[in-house]
Amino acid sequence: MRIELEKATELIREHDNILILTHRNPDGDALGSGYALCRALQSVGKNVVFRYFEKIPKVFIQLEDCCSHAEFEPSFVIAVDCADSKILGDSPEMSYKEKVDLCIDHHPSNTLYAKYTCLDENAAATTEIILMIARELGAEVDSLTATAVYIGLSTDTGCFRYSNTTARTLRMAADMVDAGINAGRLNRILFETKSKSYAALEAMALSTMKKYFAEKCAIMYITLDMYEISGTDETEVHALSALPRQIEGVLVGATIKESEPGRYKVSIRTNPPVNASEICQIFGGGGHKRAAGCEIHGTLEEVTEQLLKAIEPFVKDVEAE
Amino acid sequence: MRIELEKATELIREHDNILILTHRNPDGDALGSGYALCRALQSVGKNVVFRYFEKIPKVFIQLEDCCSHAEFEPSFVIAVDCADSKILGDSPEMSYKEKVDLCIDHHPSNTLYAKYTCLDENAAATTEIILMIARELGAEVDSLTATAVYIGLSTDTGCFRYSNTTARTLRMAADMVDAGINAGRLNRILFETKSKSYAALEAMALSTMKKYFAEKCAIMYITLDMYEISGTDETEVHALSALPRQIEGVLVGATIKESEPGRYKVSIRTNPPVNASEICQIFGGGGHKRAAGCEIHGTLEEVTEQLLKAIEPFVKDVEAE
Repeated sequence: MRIELEKATELIREHDNILILTHRNPDGDALGSGYALCRALQSVGKNVVFRYFEKIPKVFIQLEDCCSHAEFEPSFVIAVDCADSKILGDSPEMSYKEKVDLCIDHHPSNTLYAKYTCLDENAAATTEIILMIARELGAEVDSLTATAVYIGLSTDTGCFRYSNTTARTLRMAADMVDAGINAGRLNRILFETKSKSYAALEAMALSTMKKYFAEKCAIMYITLDMYEISGTDETEVHALSALPRQIEGVLVGATIKESEPGRYKVSIRTNPPVNASEICQIFGGGGHKRAAGCEIHGTLEEVTEQLLKAIEPFVKDVEAE
Repeated sequence: MRIELEKATELIREHDNILILTHRNPDGDALGSGYALCRALQSVGKNVVFRYFEKIPKVFIQLEDCCSHAEFEPSFVIAVDCADSKILGDSPEMSYKEKVDLCIDHHPSNTLYAKYTCLDENAAATTEIILMIARELGAEVDSLTATAVYIGLSTDTGCFRYSNTTARTLRMAADMVDAGINAGRLNRILFETKSKSYAALEAMALSTMKKYFAEKCAIMYITLDMYEISGTDETEVHALSALPRQIEGVLVGATIKESEPGRYKVSIRTNPPVNASEICQIFGGGGHKRAAGCEIHGTLEEVTEQLLKAIEPFVKDVEAE
């Protein structure tokens, strides 16, 4: 059942011994939401614990100790930033998939798997909703809680670049600065630092970039050898896929990533009016309008050729919007 | 003479026929300040014109028509975002260097060359001060004026990444979103689009990157040939200098740019505690703590060797802060 923010706050007020979960492979907004809610609830005297079950990207490690731990039998389970129970980061000892009381989220694709769902699709980040709940509860937002909120806001908006950023997002970020966060330092770690291995892989990948169809399509590739030489792991590769589309005039940017010999994962990023998902559907993949993925088998040359054949009708005689 | 914002507003109120100038090679904040002030003053019935005298970077061309033109003999001259009369973008017909009535600026290095100077070193961008003056004057801030203000705010803060971003900067950006700007589209043009020539040069430059001194120093170079092959001009190269320092663990990032055969401009960017200016002073250059420049003569090998010799004591036995 979908509920308003006031009702969600009321439910939280009524319970103690609260367990907070989030989605698998938690990103900045998932971790920021979990920690911010946990600390806010602790500040109003609740027994509460936030748990996730995987290694988190290095940049978020600073969040790890911002939440004290507690042991109890949870009487109320909250999932934050998790659109589907299938991707819930679940306890190895017992599954909470069917036992989520309240889901707080901003994904339009939320499957309403929880008993109650507080969903705000206009929130750029789930931490926007968490902050509103914290304020309704009269919780303290100290500099560590504010850091968690800010990491959600900034990572889900590309540091306030993307079109999901609203006036509310920016005002909340301002309030977090007032609460004492060191935004300059956080942004340097989150957005201005590349790991050595990522920097090496980036240079190699960029050197393979080629343009096609009056330069409206740009393709680069990453081979298993390149992962090996640079020392990169999968978690770092994601950001690379944005690069081909950044070139002026490019409508379709593709990154071909060798996953095992003869198998390639392809990431497609597009600018309007080209629909990335439609291109990927040709190969049995899918995704969003501007970002989608698929898998293609063959040699690198065969994969590139198939991809070019699929892309051509999407860019031929098509102009950027 | 330094004056407060209220006094600056009063001076503007007293005058009509106002000429606005800014610094040479105007950037986003210079152009944004000029256009925003011009439009704000026009909205309260002033005769006012904003002039600059050079080609502007392509990304700012959208600002060019946001200001109507007028012909008159100026009775009051305002310089915005210009720290020194030496770098004033001056009229080819007559010089205003000695005739600036009011300077509105945020550079701590302002030489106080104008009759009156309204200087706010805590403003991340000069457009912050312009917006406050527009509000004092009761001027209209429509979506075009707001676009000009936002371009100043965002370009001078790396889209709200850098440590000069304050809560006020973020709140003003929120207000500009409320005024109807298309921030997502602006940011895509300003921060997410690389010209074809820039993208080509970036790939070539990154492929030359080498690391030294336990990987605490990263150096890359750009030769005249690389400019030629990529089709880049000087105005595009600036952003490249940021790349070597972005690699994890790097304290000193240097970019060696061939300016003519046997002459190299060197850009140094550092992370704390290394002072970039101190390194560049060894070669007769200078700048700021985190960003400085100098010129070195010789072959590329000789220049690299001299540079490494100069950098070594700054990174040996030094740890990142």
